[in-house]
Amino acid sequence: MPQIRNIYDTPMNPVEFDGTKGASMAVMIGREHNAPHFALRSIAVEPGGHTPKHQHDYEHEVFVVSGAGSVFLEGDEHPIKAGDTVLVRANELHQFAVPDGASEPFRFLCIVPIEQNCGGDVPGS
Amino acid sequence: MPQIRNIYDTPMNPVEFDGTKGASMAVMIGREHNAPHFALRSIAVEPGGHTPKHQHDYEHEVFVVSGAGSVFLEGDEHPIKAGDTVLVRANELHQFAVPDGASEPFRFLCIVPIEQNCGGDVPGS
Repeated sequence: MPQIRNIYDTPMNPVEFDGTKGASMAVMIGREHNAPHFALRSIAVEPGGHTPKHQHDYEHEVFVVSGAGSVFLEGDEHPIKAGDTVLVRANELHQFAVPDGASEPFRFLCIVPIEQNCGGDVPGS
Repeated sequence: MPQIRNIYDTPMNPVEFDGTKGASMAVMIGREHNAPHFALRSIAVEPGGHTPKHQHDYEHEVFVVSGAGSVFLEGDEHPIKAGDTVLVRANELHQFAVPDGASEPFRFLCIVPIEQNCGGDVPGS
């Protein structure tokens, strides 16, 4: 059978990373499926939650599946909503956050390369 | 300004590729935005339309944004719907199709590496 999995049916694990609040993730297509170049992860953030404000030597390509939130990028907060695509370049400080009281689940896809630019596995790929 | 673009606001171009019917595409993040490893494309297929049945030496990672259709993969048709992720491995014959009379627009993301495995730009990256 080909690999076809739905983000709404796939169990997600809490993101246990310093500076994270109320975020969970599932690797939909990654190293364990022998993805050769990049990994597609599904991420959900609860109202009032956020991903870590951090940077690393590889890029993210992001697609907002549902809800609305913000991304900190290039020194400022920018609102983002369903249908938005975001390029987070390597070494850019970034953070995704959802306001308290958001009514709709905030879900996004985050695609990362399998290899870090300076070598080694990308975490969560 | 960081690169944040919405798939619903971005003009799409018809896919002019033999064997394609009623498909259009926008490169949301790609070579022109200096994406270093992979390109994120937004694709829409009309009711009764399809992408070409073809194969190539690089993979697709696909996410169905809305609607329902089918993917031909590993010799069979498989139904796919919003929220599904699909891994099309390198050199696998594949085709995405939408039934006549589908009521909801069929939209998906198709992520491809920038470079073909044997060298050269991936078309539409």
